[in-house]
Amino acid sequence: MRRIITIDREFGSGGREIGKRLAETMNIAYYDHEIVEKISESSEFTKEYIDSLDEKRPIPIFPINIASTFGMQMNFQMDRQIDLYSKTADLIRNIASKSDCLIVGRCADHILRDMNPLKLFIYADFDYKIKRCKEKKYEDIKNLSDKEIEKKIISVDKERKSYYNFYTNQEWGDRLNYDLLVNTTNVDVKCITKVLKGYIDEAFS
Amino acid sequence: MRRIITIDREFGSGGREIGKRLAETMNIAYYDHEIVEKISESSEFTKEYIDSLDEKRPIPIFPINIASTFGMQMNFQMDRQIDLYSKTADLIRNIASKSDCLIVGRCADHILRDMNPLKLFIYADFDYKIKRCKEKKYEDIKNLSDKEIEKKIISVDKERKSYYNFYTNQEWGDRLNYDLLVNTTNVDVKCITKVLKGYIDEAFS
Repeated sequence: MRRIITIDREFGSGGREIGKRLAETMNIAYYDHEIVEKISESSEFTKEYIDSLDEKRPIPIFPINIASTFGMQMNFQMDRQIDLYSKTADLIRNIASKSDCLIVGRCADHILRDMNPLKLFIYADFDYKIKRCKEKKYEDIKNLSDKEIEKKIISVDKERKSYYNFYTNQEWGDRLNYDLLVNTTNVDVKCITKVLKGYIDEAFS
Repeated sequence: MRRIITIDREFGSGGREIGKRLAETMNIAYYDHEIVEKISESSEFTKEYIDSLDEKRPIPIFPINIASTFGMQMNFQMDRQIDLYSKTADLIRNIASKSDCLIVGRCADHILRDMNPLKLFIYADFDYKIKRCKEKKYEDIKNLSDKEIEKKIISVDKERKSYYNFYTNQEWGDRLNYDLLVNTTNVDVKCITKVLKGYIDEAFS
């Protein structure tokens, strides 16, 4: 049976790290930001452009029936975002059709629903996510103040939720959309990876 | 470290069975309906009376300031329900202070929050719960029609949610109140128990 695992995650909860460790342990393909790179290689979109829209919901500023040049520009932008989602979905389906894989975010659980993926959601208490972000000093947050880190945690998750709800018509983080939801608060990522490996082995046995 | 595990669960998801198996495997005390029995032994409440109110939210029919005899009777009933919750909470704290244990439902995760319990939530897709209930033929549903089983799944969970939200001021089934949420849809209970045992061992190591 093809082993397809999807991970969605709150920012700062360790979902990315858990996904990476799991894929390594299981010796299967891992896709997170790699998806952005792959789309930029095969489309007219630059990496920077995709990054700026990655896991963000398209928002029309004007209703579609306003026939102003500016309004049309806005909707052109929205069309491009939907086109980007479509390319992302095609790529994810293509990846999953080829080999066992673990895909992080980008509505992969919904896109691959007909392939019976194992759907995980990783989250943590807000204070723990702040603490973890401060300790980890990831590239995208290492120059931020404590206050800015807090704001980033809130805004990234807000965007992810909005993106997921828009394209799937389901609620991001709602237990019914996942097989397992794991709270990483005060738990060692290595321990969680070990437990999840056991869970995945049982699920695909 | 004292191993305290709480399980909350959707009706028909297999939470009770998983809890029982886990407690057996771990050789620790198990409490579900046993709580009702223990309270009836040590209070003026009969088992039948406790059963009729078990995990149900007290609902005043009239506002407290209506000074009618009937209104007062209603509020007397509400007081008794709150008294029953208070006795349940005392018993749960007492159980957890004495030995390792696994407690199902009854806001145990909230009541024991200062003792760092491991908090699990077991759930499943609606169709799967119906299928499971029909197959299992538990004592309380064996004489029900399919339609009645469906109604019971909805009403029991509605009551549990209402009870939990009333006494904890939190949302029943909201991921932030738990350490792990497990979807049992199409998964063998023995497999889940095995995985959860591994998780608990890691968590308390």
